[in-house]
Amino acid sequence: MEDKWFVGVDLGGTSVKLAFIQEEGEILQKWEIPTDKSEQGKNILPDIAASILNKITELGETKERLSGIGMGAPGAVDKEQGIIYEAVNLGWPKNYPIVKILGELSGLPVDIDNDANCAALGEMWKGAGNGAKDIACLTLGTGVGGGIIVNGNIVQGVKGAAGEIGHITIVPEGGAPCNCGKTGCLETVASATGIVRIAKEEIIKYEGKSSLKELYKNKGIIEAKDVFDCMSQGDSLSKKIIDHITHHLGLVLANIGNVLNPEKIVIGGGVSKAGNLLLHPLQNYFKQFAYSAVAVSTELVIATLGNDAGILGAAWLAKNNRY
Amino acid sequence: MEDKWFVGVDLGGTSVKLAFIQEEGEILQKWEIPTDKSEQGKNILPDIAASILNKITELGETKERLSGIGMGAPGAVDKEQGIIYEAVNLGWPKNYPIVKILGELSGLPVDIDNDANCAALGEMWKGAGNGAKDIACLTLGTGVGGGIIVNGNIVQGVKGAAGEIGHITIVPEGGAPCNCGKTGCLETVASATGIVRIAKEEIIKYEGKSSLKELYKNKGIIEAKDVFDCMSQGDSLSKKIIDHITHHLGLVLANIGNVLNPEKIVIGGGVSKAGNLLLHPLQNYFKQFAYSAVAVSTELVIATLGNDAGILGAAWLAKNNRY
Repeated sequence: MEDKWFVGVDLGGTSVKLAFIQEEGEILQKWEIPTDKSEQGKNILPDIAASILNKITELGETKERLSGIGMGAPGAVDKEQGIIYEAVNLGWPKNYPIVKILGELSGLPVDIDNDANCAALGEMWKGAGNGAKDIACLTLGTGVGGGIIVNGNIVQGVKGAAGEIGHITIVPEGGAPCNCGKTGCLETVASATGIVRIAKEEIIKYEGKSSLKELYKNKGIIEAKDVFDCMSQGDSLSKKIIDHITHHLGLVLANIGNVLNPEKIVIGGGVSKAGNLLLHPLQNYFKQFAYSAVAVSTELVIATLGNDAGILGAAWLAKNNRY
Repeated sequence: MEDKWFVGVDLGGTSVKLAFIQEEGEILQKWEIPTDKSEQGKNILPDIAASILNKITELGETKERLSGIGMGAPGAVDKEQGIIYEAVNLGWPKNYPIVKILGELSGLPVDIDNDANCAALGEMWKGAGNGAKDIACLTLGTGVGGGIIVNGNIVQGVKGAAGEIGHITIVPEGGAPCNCGKTGCLETVASATGIVRIAKEEIIKYEGKSSLKELYKNKGIIEAKDVFDCMSQGDSLSKKIIDHITHHLGLVLANIGNVLNPEKIVIGGGVSKAGNLLLHPLQNYFKQFAYSAVAVSTELVIATLGNDAGILGAAWLAKNNRY
């Protein structure tokens, strides 16, 4: 019998990433299509199904080569019912039955999970998790996402809201407002957006000389990357800002460590590209705040799969449910 | 074939609680023996084995009636290896092979877990968890213990340190020293000991009239219970103290809720006897700090089994591993 392939789909607000992936996690073919959010997103699933079927024909294969579709979607899902509770960014109505619709359109079995959970599964399977079965993942991007894996499975929670690490309250009083409606969430501090917000506040207050301050004056904007870059060149204001960020993030990770004592905590997303500039101060605060047995046994690592984490984790979902 | 019984053992620093428990969780016989900590605790396991065998004879039964022993022990354990890493309170050497020793002494299969984890399993099986498979439990006693259950199983963590909720850092700067070596742990605030410490500090600072202050002046000591009692009689200093405690505890529980979105968070231990005086303010802070989907779906409840949680959870361990 020929090898079966799995389809990994990472559905985002701007584009859909797709891939054919073989059983061991090798990416055979990878492509993207735009996300058509018009008309309450009713074309999104038909576009995905058509794109998969076109691509398999293009490769001189037939649908029989495909074992199933796994998809990560931007919102909390009910895996059993195959629905996404809410996906504000896509225009879909509440409780949209993804699995049924995409299954009928494609003629293939479909499994879904939240996109942050898929990224976590991808890192567990082929990335920084390195096969560890108990990991916590967080994605520091525009927002902060999270996925918790216990014994090789994503923890869903009673309403699909497990892994909402970005909305852990880290500034209980006087915190900045968060998109979720609360204030002082981790996302307001440790996302790329949060880092920029804090950097701007600190720049205004800072009276000394600073390359970051100069940069902001000249360009009119700064990015999270600029803060790390300036810090690496010795700018003390930038160092202070990153110290503030990693103090808060390290405390959250230590507290997650105390609850789950996972083998690894994997840090991904755009901000994680800062590598050791982020990881080293974070490790220091983690060790300061974690219970002693956790501090020595739970390891903080940077994610390794980049943008492929989502499609790989989605394919893992499909694979895991077929075998 | 006759019903088989399970032995539930809850090993504490002062006494050992034992019980014969039938398959459905009915406690058939319950008794206690003192914990003999002399000579590095070498008599503890022989005493337990002898007590079980004596009791079964006393009841006119034989060992064949017993299907296995489950035991909760005060420290982090490695279930696979059957060892307890460290049990400072009992005098045992490090990595003490409980399962092997007690198995040989009793001639029965033995399963172990940490005592807080057993209490969590007990509450899941027969108590406030009410059969829910995803719960977090914490015990507010002299210290603060915790147990995390995902999909019906205790989360152990890579070094047995999952569920160390008591050592979540809740006062990151200027917190009180904790027995674990850190400062500002939840245990320094929300344990009975922590409540008394904070109450005494507040009494000294408080200049108004207060029944709690009077009580302390007259008795020379106060207990956590006194603070709740005075609050229920309208004492505003006591209300302020409980507000401070529940603010911190509610924040921790909300953050655990965001990570796991469990069906229930079960609060046990001596402090939980305050019932709604504790639960109601706690629920308010929980809802304030939890992510919206978590706030409406994760329920805070008071434990219902009291001192029986440990023996029931220990028996569940034995039952779960036999079938």
